[in-house]
Formats: sequence, C-alpha cells, structure tokens
Amino acid sequence: MDDVRFAVLGTGGIGRRTLEVSQHKDGLTAVAACDRNGVAVDHGGLDVEELLDATEGNIASGPADDVATDGGAAAAPEGVKQHGEQAGVVASDQGRPTETPIDDVIAESDAIDAVLVALPNLEHDFIPRVAERFAEADYEGVLVDVLKRSRVIGMLDDREETLKESGITFVCGAGATPGFLTGAAALAAQSFVEVEEVEIWWGVGLKSGYEDNRGTVREDIAHLDGYDIETAREMSEAEIEELIDDHDGVLEFNDMEHADDVLLERAGICDAEDVHVGGVLDVRSDEKPTTTTVSVTGTTFDGETGTNTFQLDDVTSMEANVNGPALGYLKAGVRNNRAGHYGVFGPADLMPGF
Amino acid sequence: MDDVRFAVLGTGGIGRRTLEVSQHKDGLTAVAACDRNGVAVDHGGLDVEELLDATEGNIASGPADDVATDGGAAAAPEGVKQHGEQAGVVASDQGRPTETPIDDVIAESDAIDAVLVALPNLEHDFIPRVAERFAEADYEGVLVDVLKRSRVIGMLDDREETLKESGITFVCGAGATPGFLTGAAALAAQSFVEVEEVEIWWGVGLKSGYEDNRGTVREDIAHLDGYDIETAREMSEAEIEELIDDHDGVLEFNDMEHADDVLLERAGICDAEDVHVGGVLDVRSDEKPTTTTVSVTGTTFDGETGTNTFQLDDVTSMEANVNGPALGYLKAGVRNNRAGHYGVFGPADLMPGF
Repeated sequence: MDDVRFAVLGTGGIGRRTLEVSQHKDGLTAVAACDRNGVAVDHGGLDVEELLDATEGNIASGPADDVATDGGAAAAPEGVKQHGEQAGVVASDQGRPTETPIDDVIAESDAIDAVLVALPNLEHDFIPRVAERFAEADYEGVLVDVLKRSRVIGMLDDREETLKESGITFVCGAGATPGFLTGAAALAAQSFVEVEEVEIWWGVGLKSGYEDNRGTVREDIAHLDGYDIETAREMSEAEIEELIDDHDGVLEFNDMEHADDVLLERAGICDAEDVHVGGVLDVRSDEKPTTTTVSVTGTTFDGETGTNTFQLDDVTSMEANVNGPALGYLKAGVRNNRAGHYGVFGPADLMPGF
Repeated sequence: MDDVRFAVLGTGGIGRRTLEVSQHKDGLTAVAACDRNGVAVDHGGLDVEELLDATEGNIASGPADDVATDGGAAAAPEGVKQHGEQAGVVASDQGRPTETPIDDVIAESDAIDAVLVALPNLEHDFIPRVAERFAEADYEGVLVDVLKRSRVIGMLDDREETLKESGITFVCGAGATPGFLTGAAALAAQSFVEVEEVEIWWGVGLKSGYEDNRGTVREDIAHLDGYDIETAREMSEAEIEELIDDHDGVLEFNDMEHADDVLLERAGICDAEDVHVGGVLDVRSDEKPTTTTVSVTGTTFDGETGTNTFQLDDVTSMEANVNGPALGYLKAGVRNNRAGHYGVFGPADLMPGF
C-alpha cells in the first residue's frame, strides 16, 4: 500500500500510543494531531517523538468530570493530568493554540488519508457528530474510532448516506473490543455454517497505566450493575477511588454493552443477542487477572458442534491490543476508501465474508 | 453484499463440499460446475442437491496415478472412485458431456462473479495456467484456489499483470492452511510491532473421509522426508497403502512447504523463514491426533514478548475448515473485485493491515 497520511484527534492515552505505535509501522505518516487547546500539523510528517515528549504527563483536559461534556469542541480523550495553559499539544514546538482544533484538522483534510478519532464518547452522539462535520467539509477519506457502545453504531448508520456522499469510509469500533476481538470472532466463525454463541472475555491489568486511562476506567464503571453512563460521568474522582477500593482494585464486568454484538450481527455472523462480552479489570496490578479469550461456538456443515478459540498472551498490554488493531483497521479502511467503498464498516465487515 | 454467482472447477472432495457448504450461506448461488468429462451450467442456480446425489461416490477421474497429469484439461481434483463413462457431473440430470470443461465454464463467465478452482495442482503451474486462460477470455471476476505450495504464489505473481488487465482478483491459498490459519496468524499479529515466529500446527483425522481425500493425502506425502512431488505422484496406490501401514496410519509432517510463509511475508507480517508449518495426519481415526493451533510470537510496542494463539476445536473437520474459509475468502474477493482491486491476493492481504 502507498503511504498513508493520518491524523489523530485527541492526544490522551489512545491517541498518544497510536502515534507511538505508528512509528513502528511501514507506510504510516502522522501529519496532524490535536487536543482541546492545540493543533499540530506537518504534511511532511510530524516529529512524533518531540510531540510525545512535550506532552508526556501533560495532557490538555478539563477537570475529569468535565470530560466530553463540551461536545462540539475537541475534548481530551481521557481525564488525566493538566498543567496550566501550556498543557497538551501546545507544549510541543510543533503545536499552536486554537479554539477550533477539530475544524483546524478538517481544514487540512484534503491532504489526509485517514483520521483516528481518539476522543471520548461519553455523549453517545459526539463521535457521530464529528463525522458529520468531516462530511460537511466534503472530506474524502477514512475515519476510525475505537468506540465501545453498541448504540453508537446505529447513530453512525443514521448518518451513512451523508458519509457516503462525502466519500468517507468510517471504520467503527476498531480497538481491542470491539475491534481486534470482533475480528477474531468473525474469523473463528469460518469453521461453522451456524454460529450459536460468541463469548468475549477480557483481562486487563492497568497498574502502571492507570493514570493514563482514567477515562477508560470511568467508561467501564458505567457497565457495572447499578451504574450507567450518566451516573459514571457524574462521579467525582474520589467516588471512583472509593468504588475501586470497595472492590480491592478488581472490577468484574458481565454482559457489557459492547458493540461486538451489533457489529457481528451486521456482518451476518450471528444474532446480537448471542454475543456476550465481559471481563476483569485490575487497576492495582499489571498482571492480567484473567486471560483474554474469544470463544466462538457453532455447528459445522457436517453437523458437529464445537468451539474455536483465540487467546491473547497475558503479557500483551491493553494498549498494544488497542493501538495495533486500530492502525491495522485504519490501513484496511484506506484500502477500501481508495477502492470507493464508502459508508460505515465494522471490523467484521473487513474480514472474510460469512 | 449482493448475490454472488459462483462456479466450481473440479467436483472432487473440495469442490463437492464447497457446493454443499454454499447451501448454508446467504448470497451465494452456484451456477456452474465441471469435472474432466462434464459440465453443468444453470444461471438461475444449479440444483446442488441433485448434482451432489448424482455424483456421490462417482467422481470422474483417471486412475489415481494419472491425476493432474493431463494439465490443460479439467482434471478431477482428487484421485477417487470412477464408475465408467457416466462418471461425475455427466451422471447428473444437469450435466452434459464435454471435452473442454474449463473452456465451457469460461464461455459462461460473463455471468459468473467468482470461480473456485478446486483442481489438483501436482504440476505447479497448472492452476496459474488455468488463470491465464480466464484472463485470455477477458474474464472480470474472482478466482479462488486452495493451493498449498509456496512456489505457486510466485507463478501467480508472474502473471499478475495479465490478471489485472483482465480484471481478475485472484485469491490464492484460501483453504485451511494456507487460508484460514494464515488469516488467523495475520490477525494474531496485531498485538505486535515485530513478529518473530509463526507456528502453524494442524491435526487431521481422516478415517471416514479417506476415500474422498486420497489426492490430498498423496500431496501431503510429498512433504515427508525422502519424498517430493514427483516421487509422490509416481507412487502406486499399493505403495501409498504400504507407507501408511509403516506409520500405523499416522503421518507427522514438519517444516512443510506451505504457502503460509510467502503469504505472510507478502502482507508484511514477518519473513517467510520465520513461518513454520507442520502437523499430524491420522488416516485411520476421525479423531484429530493433535489440536490445530496457530501461535504467533512477537514483541509489543511496549517491549513485551508474547504469543497469541488461535485454536480450532478438535471436532471441526478438515473439510469444514477448508470449505467455510474458501467461501469466506471468495466473498472477500468479490468485495475487492467489485471495488476494482485486481491482481493476486493472499488471505493475509484481506485482513487488517500490519
């Protein structure tokens, strides 16, 4: 594939690490990055190392409980540390302050092949609305997000005609789960003519990455019994710490609303209701509390019922399993976009057909 | 995806079972099938059940040790039973005798979206030459094969310009391995920025399918120490039986020449020499002698070295793991073809980019 010039909206944990991982990949050039206060653009290729060094532990964000409530502007992806007015991208030599970071990237988008949207989506329609803004500017290219929630897919589908008219290939849910593990489920299904159940079970040990991933943890809390997105958003940092204390740092999730279900259904692999997602998060250890496993149970054409499995090594971090696949799906999105395939695609849509 | 009209060249084990599996799939209509003596075409859709019933245990083939030596004509895919002049497709109400079965399918190819080439390839360039004949007829569509040998990929690549000019998307090595397991390796690599080793280890129990898969067994024997394609082709049935007896029915293969290596290298995932393929074949039991496992070892962006694994349930038959993926990759090929992506693609090229 020819060189892919990409931008990152949001330079919190996911945005930063995607920039870092892209340095290891052939054919990927980061040309723009922004956060709520700043934007950096260099069509010859950003100096990613300088940008990451300058923003290390210095990510532009409002107070944690303000995250993503500003909707229309570029919010920081995760509620993490802030260091005064020079926080975030503007602390880099390549950055400049702006009040319209997303619009500034859109203004450059003629020379951008793909955009990773690493913004928080606590408001469900925030990322769909960002996509709309790219479409309004007649962007022809790829948008990729790493969203989790099932209901967002429908909001993107509602905008599919607008995206198609613009020439946008939107790859949604392209992180670890949904994303990496959705793709694994789609592939594992290939032994079967009928899929009965998909079980996705993840383990994450987040001790050393906890500070960088508070936004993710907050979003996970919304999946716990007795919590929802609104209550999770309204919790103070102290309340979150208390909740984590009550669970000795280990939170177990069952039947999460993860878009794996609708993404597998739209690819024709199984009914959404036959997909179950859960996992265990340990914020006090880097060891995974359980092994991340995808189990796909189905029936073969010759009448046998079996379970194929995909397992990630416990040493592979959540970060590695989000950012590698995000870039992998981004590349697949570019292949599709250059071929004129526009609209909304899930990870399973980019796999062999079922 | 809109309806895909497909043809099968060769109605031995793989061709027959692909027709059977397609009955379970949405959006696939079998419109043509041929073997060395006959062809059946119905653009409204073949009566697959009638065709399979009529050809059950009745596959047109020369004597086993003649298999695939006729090159230019449609050879039967595997050296199995023959029952006189009415053997194979001509035994079906839908079949008619022909001396030019492949040309007869090519003549209909304007109305065919994809062709599964389930012909034997003991002569390495046989399938590449069949592809050339489709290109000479200006076929615009997909060709899929389930070949195994690494060296065939180069022969296809040599013809890539011809295929592109015609508008052909050739998906090569789209069975179990290479194919299903190559795709799994490509996906499992997504945790890593550097892949150090891919190990593909398969188990096949073939007791009840032995008669239908003698051609495959013969091709596997060519991978044993002390054998090659020529010696395997020249062995009589009695000699093969004797070899199998000597091994009590269980043949173990190491460092096989399987195209997984070049297919993963061409997708940029690792060097061909870091891919190892082996397995155990038991022709006297339906139980798999070992669990089919793909292990991908690599290093993450954050410096950890780990191994992701993909395992097929022991109850999933070799047949299920060849024919489901063959149709899955066929569908992916059609998506690419309709988007104007022509040339030679391996399974890993149809996965998220690395």
